[in-house]
Parts: sequence; C-alpha cells; structure tokens
Amino acid sequence: MGASALPIIIFSAIFGVVGIVLPIVAPKGPNRGWLCCYMAQMNPLIGPKLHQNTILIMAPLIIPKNATVKSQDINSKSQRLMLEHGLIRQAGNGTFYLLPLLQRSLQKAIDLIDRHMEAIGAQKMTLPLLTSAELWKKSGRLKANEGGTPTELLQTTDRHGKVQILGPTHEESITSLLAAIAPVTYRQFPLRLYQISTKFRDEMKPRFGLMRAKEFLMKDLYTFDVDREGCRDTYESVNEAYGRLFGEIGVPFVKVAGDCGTMGGSLSHEYHFPSEVGEDQLIRCTRCGLHSNAELFPAVSEQCKSCISSETVERQAGIEVAHAFILEERYTKPLGATCLAANGKPAPLQMGCYGIGVTRLLAASIEVLSSEKEIRWPAALAPYRVCLITPKAGSKEETQAVPWIGKLYNDLQTVPNCTGEVIVDDRTQLTIGKRLLDARKLGYPVIVIVGSKAISEEMFEVHNVTDGTEVNLSYGDTLTAVGEILASKSAKHQHSTVQNQCGNKAAQEVL
Amino acid sequence: MGASALPIIIFSAIFGVVGIVLPIVAPKGPNRGWLCCYMAQMNPLIGPKLHQNTILIMAPLIIPKNATVKSQDINSKSQRLMLEHGLIRQAGNGTFYLLPLLQRSLQKAIDLIDRHMEAIGAQKMTLPLLTSAELWKKSGRLKANEGGTPTELLQTTDRHGKVQILGPTHEESITSLLAAIAPVTYRQFPLRLYQISTKFRDEMKPRFGLMRAKEFLMKDLYTFDVDREGCRDTYESVNEAYGRLFGEIGVPFVKVAGDCGTMGGSLSHEYHFPSEVGEDQLIRCTRCGLHSNAELFPAVSEQCKSCISSETVERQAGIEVAHAFILEERYTKPLGATCLAANGKPAPLQMGCYGIGVTRLLAASIEVLSSEKEIRWPAALAPYRVCLITPKAGSKEETQAVPWIGKLYNDLQTVPNCTGEVIVDDRTQLTIGKRLLDARKLGYPVIVIVGSKAISEEMFEVHNVTDGTEVNLSYGDTLTAVGEILASKSAKHQHSTVQNQCGNKAAQEVL
Repeated sequence: MGASALPIIIFSAIFGVVGIVLPIVAPKGPNRGWLCCYMAQMNPLIGPKLHQNTILIMAPLIIPKNATVKSQDINSKSQRLMLEHGLIRQAGNGTFYLLPLLQRSLQKAIDLIDRHMEAIGAQKMTLPLLTSAELWKKSGRLKANEGGTPTELLQTTDRHGKVQILGPTHEESITSLLAAIAPVTYRQFPLRLYQISTKFRDEMKPRFGLMRAKEFLMKDLYTFDVDREGCRDTYESVNEAYGRLFGEIGVPFVKVAGDCGTMGGSLSHEYHFPSEVGEDQLIRCTRCGLHSNAELFPAVSEQCKSCISSETVERQAGIEVAHAFILEERYTKPLGATCLAANGKPAPLQMGCYGIGVTRLLAASIEVLSSEKEIRWPAALAPYRVCLITPKAGSKEETQAVPWIGKLYNDLQTVPNCTGEVIVDDRTQLTIGKRLLDARKLGYPVIVIVGSKAISEEMFEVHNVTDGTEVNLSYGDTLTAVGEILASKSAKHQHSTVQNQCGNKAAQEVL
Repeated sequence: MGASALPIIIFSAIFGVVGIVLPIVAPKGPNRGWLCCYMAQMNPLIGPKLHQNTILIMAPLIIPKNATVKSQDINSKSQRLMLEHGLIRQAGNGTFYLLPLLQRSLQKAIDLIDRHMEAIGAQKMTLPLLTSAELWKKSGRLKANEGGTPTELLQTTDRHGKVQILGPTHEESITSLLAAIAPVTYRQFPLRLYQISTKFRDEMKPRFGLMRAKEFLMKDLYTFDVDREGCRDTYESVNEAYGRLFGEIGVPFVKVAGDCGTMGGSLSHEYHFPSEVGEDQLIRCTRCGLHSNAELFPAVSEQCKSCISSETVERQAGIEVAHAFILEERYTKPLGATCLAANGKPAPLQMGCYGIGVTRLLAASIEVLSSEKEIRWPAALAPYRVCLITPKAGSKEETQAVPWIGKLYNDLQTVPNCTGEVIVDDRTQLTIGKRLLDARKLGYPVIVIVGSKAISEEMFEVHNVTDGTEVNLSYGDTLTAVGEILASKSAKHQHSTVQNQCGNKAAQEVL
C-alpha cells in the first residue's frame, strides 16, 4: 500500500508545482493564471498555440544571397520584384516555378474568378490540354502546310503519329464537345462552360516574367446561345461580371473596344491595367468617348474616326488582362455544333468566348501597384493580409511575447477578412527591424509588431502598409484597427479608377 | 398636384393587392403571410429562393438519347457509368472532358489532399508542365538516342529547337530548382513541396477511362532532408498522412511494398483499391504478413520469400491510387542539389517523392463502390450529397411545393456536412419517379422527395441511397435524418476495410 501511494504523492508534488508555484513566477501575460498554466502542461492543444508557418522557411531559401539574376533578361518591375522576393523562379525560357507565397495569391485569384463565374451561371469543367490538330484544320486555324513551320502553336506527336496541339485556347475543343451531342433542344440554352487551366504559346521572345510566358494559367469561358440576341445578352452579362470582378480586385482598369484578330467573330472588348510596360496602345477620344485598342484603327490612330479630329485623342499603354469576343458561328458552323430551334430545324449555335489571364493578372497587379523596391498587392490577392513580427531570439521580451503572439494570432482569426490570413514571421534570428523591412517589401497590407512595448505597456505597433502610416495601440484597439484597415478603401487601391463605362457604346457603333 | 398624386395612388393600389389580397389567396405553406409575400415581391433575394442549379440542365445535355458509345472501347464499369451519366466525355484516344458534376468531385478530392498535405507542413506550388529534355538527360532518364524513338514521354520542340518533355513526373524539375539555390543551410530542412497538376503519358493503349489516360491530374510531393534518418522520418510522416487521407475517403485500400522501377531509389510503397479490373497483382502471405506488389518478386510470386511457402500466399488485383518512394540521392547527386551540413560541408540532399493519381482516384472509387447500373461515391467525393426532387409540372402539388423546397433547401444548408451540398432536380417535365431513378443512378448519398404527402401531411420521403432504405418523415425529422445519414459510417463505405498496417514492416525487412 505504501508502494502504491508513492507515484500518487510524486505526481501530486509535481503538479502542485505546476499548478501553484509556476503561476506565481510566470511572467505577466494574457495566459497567466493557474488554470491556463496547468492546462497548457497537460495538453499543448488546449493552450494558445503559436502558428509555425513553414512558408517563412521557404522565403529565405528561395532568395539566397548568391542568387544570380541576369539583369538583361529582366524587363519589368514586377518580374524583378517577384524574382527578388521569392514569388517566382525562372525554370526555362518563358517558364517559371510559382513558389508557395505566389501560389496562395493564385488560389485567391482562382476563387475570386470562380465566384464571379458561378454568379452568372457558368459551370466549371476541364478540357484536355491536348487538342487534335485535325480539329484545328477543320476550323481553319491550322493550315495543312503549317505542320513544319514554326508558329506560336506548340505541338506534340504521339506514338501513333497523331499530332496534338498544346492549346493556347480551346474553341475547337469545346465546340467539338457540343457538336458531338448536337442537335440539342433550344430549351437547354444558354449554356456557359469554363475552365481554369494551363495554356501554351511558343513566344518568339518571352518577356516581362509571368506577363508574356510560354506557359500560363488562363480562365476561358465559352458560351452558347440559340440566337444572336441571346448571344448579345450573354455578352453583356459576362462583361458586367468582368466589371464587378475587376472592381473587386480594385486595380485601376479600362475596358476598350478590341480587335477580333485571329479569333474571328464580330465584337470584342479588352480589359487593361494602364501601365508603361503594357504592350498595347489604347486610344481614347475625349470628345465622343470612343475608347479602343489602337490596333483597331491603325491608319487613323492619330485621329478619332467618329469626330475626325486629332486634338481630342489621348494615348495610353495598357496590359491586357481579359478579353471578350462574340464569335457567333465562326466555330460552331464548320464543326457542326447545332441546336434544335423552336421551329424544329437545326441551327448553328451562337458562341462567345471570354478569357482572363490569371497568372498575368497577378503580375500586372504588382506591376501597377508596386514601387521600385516594395511589392504592393490588391488586398483581395495578397498572399497573407496580416504579418505578425515576434521579438528577436535572445531578447529579454522573447519568452514573454510568446503568449501574446498566440492570443493575437487566434483572436485575429475572428476579425472580418482576417480568417486564415495571418502569417507569423518567426525567423527570430533576425531583428524586428530587418523583418519589418522584409514584410514591407513583400507587401502584406498590415504588419503588427509584438515588441518590447507589448510586454511593458501592452501596446502593439500597427503598420498600414498601403498608406504608409503606423500607430501604437492597446490590445483591443489593435484588433479593431486591423479590421478597419482591411475594410477601408485604401487597402483596395481604389484611388482615381480610370474605369471607362461609356466609351464602349461609341466603339460598338464605330465597329 | 393631382397629377403627381396619381402614381402614388396607383402603386398603393398595386401593393395593396400584393400585401393584402395575395396572402389570403396564397396556398398553405411555410411562407404564407403578408410580410413574406410582400418582401418576396419587393426583392426576390429577401424571400426564400429556389436554387436553380444549371448543373441539371447540363446532365441531360451531355447524355442525349443518341449518344453513341463504342462498346468495344469500354473496358471498365467506372468508364461506362461515367460516360453514361454525364460525368466525362471522350475527347481523343486517352483524353477526356471532365464535365461539371465530376469537376465538383475533383475539387473535393483536391481540397481533401490539400488539407492532408498542409497538415504535414507541405507547401503547394506550381512547376512548369514543360521540362527541358536536357535535365532528363542529366538525370539519365532520357537517353541521348531516344529523341526519335517512341516512348511514353510526350515531347515538343519549341521554335528555337529546344526539346521539352511534357512531364509525367517532375523529379528533375524540382531538383533543378533546389540545385539552383544550393547549398542551403541544413537548418532550413526538411522541405516539403507539392503540386496538383496535369501529367502526360503517351500510353500505347489508353484504357479504363480516367484510370489509364494520356492526360491525368496528379498530386506530386517532393521532400528534401539533410540525412537518411530525416528522409526515413519524412517517409513515415507522409505515409501516415496517406493512411489518414485514404481512411477519410473510406474506400477499402491496401498498402503494399512496391517496386522502385524507373524512379530509382531504395524503398517504395503503393496504395491500392482492390478491384478485379486492377492492373497490378498484389500478393499477401497470411503467415508473415508480407504484402507486396507481385512484380517485386517475379520469380517467386507463387511463394512467400520469407516463409518459403506457397500455401500461405493470397493473390488479389488492385488499382494503384498512390505511390511513395525514398529516392535518396538518385536525382540530387547528378543535378547537384546540396545542403550545407552541420559540419560546414555541402552534401547531397536526401529526396523522397509521393504521388496520388487524382483523376484515377475518382474513377477507382466509382469502380469499387458502384453496381453495374448505379454509381456510388465515397461521401467525401460525391458531387452533391443531397438531391431534392420537386413535383412534376402540371401536378396539383406543383405550386404549393415551391415554398417547401425553398425552405428545405435553405434549412439544409445549416445541417452539418450539408452546406453547399444540396442540388435541386427541377427538371419538372419529368415525373418524380424518373428523377428518383436518375438520382439513384448518379449516386447522391441522400435523396429527399417533396411530393403530394408534403402538401397533404407535411411528410417528406428520405432515401438513404448507400444502404437502400427509405422513410417518410416530418419536416423537422427530415433535417435530423439527413444529418444522421451523412454522419453515419454507412455513408462513408467503411465496411470491412481490408487496410493492412502490419505487412509493411515485413516487406521492408525483405527489401
């Protein structure tokens, strides 16, 4: 009996120390108190935990001191910033690794696009990346004699000798799906199908990083209507969705009349982020509101076609991030995609196609918003929205800050727009100052520093990275301030949006 | 003044009818009452809404009556069921369209994998689909003279004459990324990087639909450790995550010792769904517990190598859904991916790679769980978990059921495991019976019918598709029952899981 009592006595003594003595000597902090101390000992899952985010192991790994970046290959600010800050790494000529931080932004862009597509009844699916060259010959986009000639089309030949196109776009593929089940009754339209997938373009000279790459992620929506009126209605509906989507991203954009080019079709609009490195020239007539890509009017690019005046024309460079086309019967007729009309006769479907360059959208946003040294993101696409910085290893605040960080991390999850959006920079071998510099360069919209003042005065340093201000706040005010910054317009970069709503009608009339 | 009062009088009269008269003549239902009626008139968003899910417009479109499916090309149950029920459509030889319903299942598989990868600290990224052939020559997987010989590797040549591999797997690519920044200090390891992307394999004879296709979606994780012990620890950690992942999916699976084959490396395990159409032969010794792919012991496949007995060997066919390899220095040494060890000297990184066939996982699940006529899903991967069926158009219940459907749809969103998981089959031109048959064939785990009894007795027909039972329940009990069915083990198909936990150790010893 004496022997069996021994373990009980020993364990009681140990937990007596844990429960009674430790709370007394424990430093001041949000978790001081015997119950919290005891529970954290029993099960670390109950106590507040520190988020050990491995992303921050990745960042320095991918940006080593000896990284050699050939400066002559870098021809845009976004490309340089993304390379320097560990968002991308070059793999080959025009191909890139998208590293974990950028992958998060990419996922946000995908989710955002999914949401806006779903809102207009578009259904997501997957088309194969390989399309038979035969289909491209049928549509007339691949001439029979082009087999050996280098074009922008990457091709591969399978072991049975069949040539496959590595699709830059999938009009032939989706139309062939509709043709295979044609004719379908008119009652089942409109039909809106989209995918978000890797596209290929064998650029002669890939440049600007993700803005003109050989491989890129693109959203491509294809719509099918029974008549031209329906096709126009769909066109308006998708363009309105694009307006809402780019409005939500908040980077200033313009919508201009575009060239139908190699796609064929009858009407087209482009969405651009105005930027000096943009490869498109946009023209705008200040008198009649005409706004279009200059390539639409090559001969008269110096004067407005409607107003016949050169004084009213403004020029601007833009990065094309999205494009909308009415294709009508361009593909459905040669490939035989028909519907059974109300009169009982088969009629070619009226088609539209609508692209968004997803990887380009990320690069273009950075290009437009960033300074030469620091990345700035649209709040909707920042890899994380809040960065917490902890004291340096070996500092006298180090251990006392741990529970504050844990509490702040957990409480921030309940602040609107913050859930899953907080990263803790626990590279404690670096000073707070160095990490603050890094966090500003990476462009997290909000930075919160848990430094010496957090311990002595329970005050936290909150940086609004978008407008460059900083304040010292109490714990409760810190949570409020983070929520306010993320909800404010400044974080969304909606300053003087040059969005154009009226020019398009004029452009349509000109067309 | 008389003129300006007119519109006010007219609108008051109209809304008087809406607010006072309509509620009186409105049929009995959960939303009867003047306020609800008025609000629904003012703004359809405020009133309960019917979910007009366009997916169900898609389903009949993709399975037209005149669909011609060449029966000789169909060699598995899953392939036939997926074609017949509008989940996939063939595009070319070994390439498929993944239609919207399957796309939802695919997204669930991706989310599930992401969650289990994140839990072991793996970071998601994107590697380019094109890998330089030069890298494959460096690793020795592409012989210089193989350029013209047909292999399983699809290749493309860009306009500059550079040959690119359409990656079936990306060991060379990821190792080259690590090599480019080498040597990195040992403190920054282990490092776990993965992607979920399209892979290519130029199969001589693609078959079984998504199970052996030319293009498929694969999750590939690559791990890097500083030494062999770390590499083993990582191997165990990833295999445990795989065990949890496949346990959550709930399809019976086995883990067996595998062949390192063309990957190189020193240890390998495979995860199989046992099935007659499986292309791998698995052997298991009932005495010592050895469980392995038969190709590991081609000479002695009829007798256990350890027990030297043929009487104890059982054979089974399996569909491989995942594979784990310890590669050690197989790729890091030739490509120069090193770390700076604790002793200050560079040492080759110890590598592992871990694949999951994502599209194959969906097909294999259907193959194993379905009957010849009806698809069955693991609950975690069903495109929708609950299907609501409405009365037929023209029936006397039709209008009275509308508010019940709306209420049920909204209230089900708050039932655990139901949020975003309800689809309304509003193809009201079809009878309830026909749509019930379709819903069973598509394998939604729960079907709720709002029929004549809903109106007369407020009773709803709840079908548990997994165990084949049906009951008539009151409104409140219906909500409870749906929650219970989805939470129950039966819905997860966890019957007599043949999971093997012990055989692996024996297999390792044999190796």
